[in-house]
Amino acid sequence: MTVGERGEHALIEWLCRRLPRPGPDVIVGIGDDAAVVRSPRGALLVQTTDTLVDGVHVDTRLMAPHDVGRRAVAVNLSDLAAMGARPEWLLLSLVLPPSLPLATFGALVEGVADEAGRWNARVIGGNITQSPGPLVVDVAATGSVRPRRLLRRDTGRAGDELWLTGTVGGAAAGLAALRSGGPATEAALDAAARYLTPTPRLREAWAVARERAVRAAIDLSDGLADGVRQLATASGTGARLDATALPLHPALAELCDDPVATGLASDDYELLLAVPPGAARRLTANRLRVATPFTRIGVLTAVPDLVLVRPSGDEPLPAGFEHFAQV
Amino acid sequence: MTVGERGEHALIEWLCRRLPRPGPDVIVGIGDDAAVVRSPRGALLVQTTDTLVDGVHVDTRLMAPHDVGRRAVAVNLSDLAAMGARPEWLLLSLVLPPSLPLATFGALVEGVADEAGRWNARVIGGNITQSPGPLVVDVAATGSVRPRRLLRRDTGRAGDELWLTGTVGGAAAGLAALRSGGPATEAALDAAARYLTPTPRLREAWAVARERAVRAAIDLSDGLADGVRQLATASGTGARLDATALPLHPALAELCDDPVATGLASDDYELLLAVPPGAARRLTANRLRVATPFTRIGVLTAVPDLVLVRPSGDEPLPAGFEHFAQV
Repeated sequence: MTVGERGEHALIEWLCRRLPRPGPDVIVGIGDDAAVVRSPRGALLVQTTDTLVDGVHVDTRLMAPHDVGRRAVAVNLSDLAAMGARPEWLLLSLVLPPSLPLATFGALVEGVADEAGRWNARVIGGNITQSPGPLVVDVAATGSVRPRRLLRRDTGRAGDELWLTGTVGGAAAGLAALRSGGPATEAALDAAARYLTPTPRLREAWAVARERAVRAAIDLSDGLADGVRQLATASGTGARLDATALPLHPALAELCDDPVATGLASDDYELLLAVPPGAARRLTANRLRVATPFTRIGVLTAVPDLVLVRPSGDEPLPAGFEHFAQV
Repeated sequence: MTVGERGEHALIEWLCRRLPRPGPDVIVGIGDDAAVVRSPRGALLVQTTDTLVDGVHVDTRLMAPHDVGRRAVAVNLSDLAAMGARPEWLLLSLVLPPSLPLATFGALVEGVADEAGRWNARVIGGNITQSPGPLVVDVAATGSVRPRRLLRRDTGRAGDELWLTGTVGGAAAGLAALRSGGPATEAALDAAARYLTPTPRLREAWAVARERAVRAAIDLSDGLADGVRQLATASGTGARLDATALPLHPALAELCDDPVATGLASDDYELLLAVPPGAARRLTANRLRVATPFTRIGVLTAVPDLVLVRPSGDEPLPAGFEHFAQV
């Protein structure tokens, strides 16, 4: 049975039954012309949208439909994390090839519901359309943040330290492992999981915002090199990145010829943080009450150059991975 | 020159230069991980999303890219109108075939900006991705409404009169004219305009909400028969629709064999309103201060049947146009 045989109304009914009943902030949920919500008093609203296209951002030959659904939500929540926001409501747009099996549709929606539920984000509406082209999953997310806890990317200053959550390169190494017949080692298995189901760094973002530990933040949706470039450019600074300090995922050395170059281009959905000198002690795990490690990897500079510091000498920071990505 | 040759960052820069600088409610606009806005005090937020796929919802062989951009915004604003809301912010997701000419991209964005600007909706973010499939334009819109002016579709009652803004069938007749070599009469020209650039009935919705003239509302994104069915079903009523009362667009008689059947299935983006008995006098144009005519076309009934009253006798209301449409 395919989604084309089933038809729109039946799909929507199934979707509504699968999603949890939203709380009292949702005045009108799925089923009307639009959803109606009551925004948290005194909070700013944070809005973002991100799209997955089969064959471009995800590959349904390598990735289970449940993981595609989770990822579609996770990449949006990662953007909310980079602003210090809490997820509130999601709109889900599905563009489906009519031949898509109904079971694939079901697993995808389960993935959306699971990742949304994990972070208390409520799916309040959306739409389902058909297309002769590939599967497209578009999520629009709204979060909320108290004005004093808002994180932006354009507020870094020369002298701020650059810190990173978690590791880099896991996603790229995981994809390489999946493409070459499947992960064969423990490190490769972990890397594959990081590619398939990235974790939005929401808890880490809330913790650093609460501790007023950072001056600027960005998520690594297009890799670390791109993140450093974007944050420094928006802040009107340069940056020096220490190649030997990068917390490279252990699978990189097994699977890639140039672990540093691959790590710099990997879309790991970690957070890059600009930390004022002296505030770094507030980033200890003990204080933040999160398990994720934080690593100092460089510094913002008054000189506008973007530099990768290697043992062999300084190099220009490689260009980021520019597919058509995030506005 | 194509969008694939130009690359994402250049496209975004162009887009930012084209869009007007947003007002003080937009704390962070395009360029960060997400947009940040201050929601109007005391208002509810209304959120919707709608997607256009080339070859399914629009046909770029018949429709100029500027009109595609306008339509992508207009269909979302029509959903906000159906809730009585005022447009606030838009997120724009573009999924582009790399071979798309840069001029087409530019005209499409101009259309988005023009329709948004007409209604004071601010484009605050989005994303641009590439795809081997057809052009996909997805807009997510947020509006605001005072709680007492909210319009819903599930609050009609048996005995309420059904009223309609404008005419029905213009969009279907206009599409027929465009497909058969272009509109040849004045009526067909007007119909083509209704198909190409539908007007969201925002002013009409604000006016009837202000006058407390209606009990329930829905927009006709899938045609009148579907709208009547949805409103009646959500409200737990039946409906009787008077075929002779339908304000059919004049081009229907010229271009279609069965004007009533075509009019019932045409996606005209008019509003269908459930009006309590006695409140109809508040729908006079003079009082509402809008030029659009309002026409009484039927009634909600306690009997759950959906009936089309023809001079030849009662018929079941035809099924609506079910492509995969709006959640």
